[in-house]
Amino acid sequence: MKGGILFVYDNKEMLQRQEPHSLPYPDLETYTVDMSHILALITDGPTKTYCHRRLNFLESKFSLHEMLNEMSEFKELKSNPHRDFYNVRKVDTHIHAAACMNQKHLLRFIQHTYQTEPDRTVAEKRGQKVTLRQVFSSLHMDPYDLTVDSLDVHADRQTFHRFDKFNSKYNPMGASELRDLYLKTENYLGGEYFARMVKEVAQELEESKYQYSEPRLSIYGRSPEEWQSLARWFIQHQVYSPNMRWVIQVPRIYDIFRAKKLLPNFGRMLENIFLPLFKATINPQDHRELHLFLKYVTGFDSVDDESKHSDHMFSDKSPSPDDWTSEQNPPYSYYLYYMYANIMVLNNLRRERGLSTFLFRPHCGEAGSITHLVSAFLTADNISHGLLLKKSPVLQYLYYLAQIPIAMSPLSNNSLFLEYSKNPLREFLHKGLHVSLSTDDPMQFHYTKEALMEEYAIAAQVWKLSTCDLCEIARNSVLQSGLSHQEKQRFLGENYYKEGPEGNDIRRTNVAQIRMAFRHETLCNELSFLSDALKSEEITAPDN
Amino acid sequence: MKGGILFVYDNKEMLQRQEPHSLPYPDLETYTVDMSHILALITDGPTKTYCHRRLNFLESKFSLHEMLNEMSEFKELKSNPHRDFYNVRKVDTHIHAAACMNQKHLLRFIQHTYQTEPDRTVAEKRGQKVTLRQVFSSLHMDPYDLTVDSLDVHADRQTFHRFDKFNSKYNPMGASELRDLYLKTENYLGGEYFARMVKEVAQELEESKYQYSEPRLSIYGRSPEEWQSLARWFIQHQVYSPNMRWVIQVPRIYDIFRAKKLLPNFGRMLENIFLPLFKATINPQDHRELHLFLKYVTGFDSVDDESKHSDHMFSDKSPSPDDWTSEQNPPYSYYLYYMYANIMVLNNLRRERGLSTFLFRPHCGEAGSITHLVSAFLTADNISHGLLLKKSPVLQYLYYLAQIPIAMSPLSNNSLFLEYSKNPLREFLHKGLHVSLSTDDPMQFHYTKEALMEEYAIAAQVWKLSTCDLCEIARNSVLQSGLSHQEKQRFLGENYYKEGPEGNDIRRTNVAQIRMAFRHETLCNELSFLSDALKSEEITAPDN
Repeated sequence: MKGGILFVYDNKEMLQRQEPHSLPYPDLETYTVDMSHILALITDGPTKTYCHRRLNFLESKFSLHEMLNEMSEFKELKSNPHRDFYNVRKVDTHIHAAACMNQKHLLRFIQHTYQTEPDRTVAEKRGQKVTLRQVFSSLHMDPYDLTVDSLDVHADRQTFHRFDKFNSKYNPMGASELRDLYLKTENYLGGEYFARMVKEVAQELEESKYQYSEPRLSIYGRSPEEWQSLARWFIQHQVYSPNMRWVIQVPRIYDIFRAKKLLPNFGRMLENIFLPLFKATINPQDHRELHLFLKYVTGFDSVDDESKHSDHMFSDKSPSPDDWTSEQNPPYSYYLYYMYANIMVLNNLRRERGLSTFLFRPHCGEAGSITHLVSAFLTADNISHGLLLKKSPVLQYLYYLAQIPIAMSPLSNNSLFLEYSKNPLREFLHKGLHVSLSTDDPMQFHYTKEALMEEYAIAAQVWKLSTCDLCEIARNSVLQSGLSHQEKQRFLGENYYKEGPEGNDIRRTNVAQIRMAFRHETLCNELSFLSDALKSEEITAPDN
Repeated sequence: MKGGILFVYDNKEMLQRQEPHSLPYPDLETYTVDMSHILALITDGPTKTYCHRRLNFLESKFSLHEMLNEMSEFKELKSNPHRDFYNVRKVDTHIHAAACMNQKHLLRFIQHTYQTEPDRTVAEKRGQKVTLRQVFSSLHMDPYDLTVDSLDVHADRQTFHRFDKFNSKYNPMGASELRDLYLKTENYLGGEYFARMVKEVAQELEESKYQYSEPRLSIYGRSPEEWQSLARWFIQHQVYSPNMRWVIQVPRIYDIFRAKKLLPNFGRMLENIFLPLFKATINPQDHRELHLFLKYVTGFDSVDDESKHSDHMFSDKSPSPDDWTSEQNPPYSYYLYYMYANIMVLNNLRRERGLSTFLFRPHCGEAGSITHLVSAFLTADNISHGLLLKKSPVLQYLYYLAQIPIAMSPLSNNSLFLEYSKNPLREFLHKGLHVSLSTDDPMQFHYTKEALMEEYAIAAQVWKLSTCDLCEIARNSVLQSGLSHQEKQRFLGENYYKEGPEGNDIRRTNVAQIRMAFRHETLCNELSFLSDALKSEEITAPDN
């Protein structure tokens, strides 16, 4: 590792000569230059006006489309045999594994374990073995009397704009013992309980047949052993499901580990996260479990409370990760760049060797500064949330033009950052941004057994979405997911990767061709409008 | 029958002397006088101001209560063992049997019948027997290809303020043949398919254990045989479930029958509706099936599009039902009075004989004139919808003071009459009106398998209701339902009929005693405030 980025050398000699294997990645300078360019762009008055107008135009255009073609769209869907909203494929594009079961499910599971194996040793405390019965008696609670109220994992009015309170909701009954026991992969039981619950959720998905999900599992970067242990958990408990694809989330909590002196500098954190992956890629036979696990991992996520402010302004003068020894947390843009650069090097290496590659799908624009959306624009394959695009017409228009996918979770936002009725999802969808619906944390936010359906149902009811709207969102969710090329062909149509109606097989997606044509024409129109303007140089230069 | 009301004579002699058995009921004059009194009251300026202020006060008082006691309420619930929102009893207080399954359920059922018995004779057309296969081939449809889109029973944007379009959604694929075959109790199969579907819905309720429902079955008053046929359907197919209580809905469509010359006058319609009930009450042994069926019927409902205007103004000069021979439909108030009077006579008769009695629970205040709410205030045990109370502070205050229960269906309203965010349910709940949540028509409005939970979930999410709010609504729903005294004791507590915290067993209802105390004190306060004012005669007389 050098300057926070891993390099691979073909042999020792090359290492001595400092000639790494060529695995291209964008260098720091390119990133910071691009970033300041876009930062200038988004604050430029004329550009803002221009983008604002184009977005308004897009919205009005859709309204017009709706008025004129709503009935024709529905007619198309009615005459489409066998396929309706219920049997089109939907992917829950953003969900955390530790909260993928609903509160009632968790409650039942806890009660079930207590009924069936109260005398099992489930933990060790200061050398003493502790049984399940002892865990609960130390909490003064009989699991029979346990309720979702006393479990207290559901977000409520107290959590609005309080991410800290929300985070503590991950502890059932406010007790971190229970979180460790039931919601972690590393504990005395080797994460058995958590694995069983995740598998129950997977079972339900498989039964539903048309629902898929992409749960996030955490790698913290505290130690290089984390990967090995996570992979072992996954394989030992066979936490595999055809209806699940895994994403690794890296919490941005270097500052906490640094304060506890678990890490000397930020570079070490990156090394802990990425070095094991390079090793497993280069020598799969020495890292069988990890190698196998990585087959089911489709991407990386970067998570934490975005509303936390950082003093540091990332530039090419910022300390390199190895020199980042302060207790301060690096800013969002810093995290994103180094994760992205390493993932890119890794992907290039894996591609050379015919292995699967990873997408970068950070949380972005849930709260905090809109500059996060600039970093993600430069690095991410798709993002989760994207709420704050609402506040920047330039960025919103850029995300539209580039069709960067956005996994939105309006029910989660409703509990944490933005009231449901003010959520921009409907507006984004109308304008043609590439949005999908996701649950984020069913344990905290949802009431029914089918969290993803609850999410769709509420959006449909509150925003009066048509069947075609719903199926368009579902199609987007498959497109932006980590499902394989073959699966996407099966779920969306042979030519799903083509643009416009050509890429849509209505018999599988139940999205009207009229809608697809409208979206395609509109996007082409915007792009050609821009390129024409560039040609004739009539466009107001952004640096004016 | 005389003047639209049934009289019972002890023997022939009494009949000759025109001395009926004494079964008190409110006479027409009382009704019309009371009605005009309230009509004057609701338009009186000072009364309006007074009520408006009191209602504002009630709302602010609740906000204050919430700010001060929210955490204490939740603490109470957390320490309440074994009971949470999921295992408190909830009753779906307003649901139509013909739409009690969701659209996906109906679709699957249709496909299932076609797969298992395509060659069964299911209808007779002009003397010719028709098989299921023939039904579908005449519609040019293979049920395998059928989708919820082609079924087209779901309400959508086209139905907003179009009750007529909504009504036609009861026809799967727009085909009345399918409605007759699958959603009716009278057809070639004796309503077997409908019975099977209703029983499947009941099965799901029984499995959920904590959910109950009160589906409406129709009696039209076209002919006196309807009751017999409905009772036979019920008994033959054993459409009984411990989790269902039945309500009879009478559509207000005299004008349609009259135009088709099926009825000579309105009096005959009333006779067709009520005479069979009197007969079955007096001679149960001659009407075994009906007598048995009536044990499971707990009330009457009056239904139709309230937004239809009527020219006639009901007064004591209106023609009596026997003389109502015109093709015009009688107004809402007329229907309500005559149903109410007959139900009351019938109840008095049944009470004398130790038989069950019926509640009167009309649809009211969904749309149309607010005078409907006046009629219902004078006659109804509880009402469905009550949306328009929003428009009349006086009526709203009266419904509050009298604690007349209101079964609200915001998702239904959202599709038909009022956007979700504008629905007054939250406001009514805060002020202390006796509201419950109900689904109305899961087939048309809901997306998930658990329609009632979907209703609660959306209300909770959109309005950020607390657990205590949800459990209060659930408690209200049991209270206002037709469940028996014993069941209510089991679900709400021994003394559920008492007012205030005394009547609440938190171990069964999960409603905080702090909340109960607040509601009780507030209501007592309003009442004593009024009576004090009356005593000191300081109140502005409403006829000023």
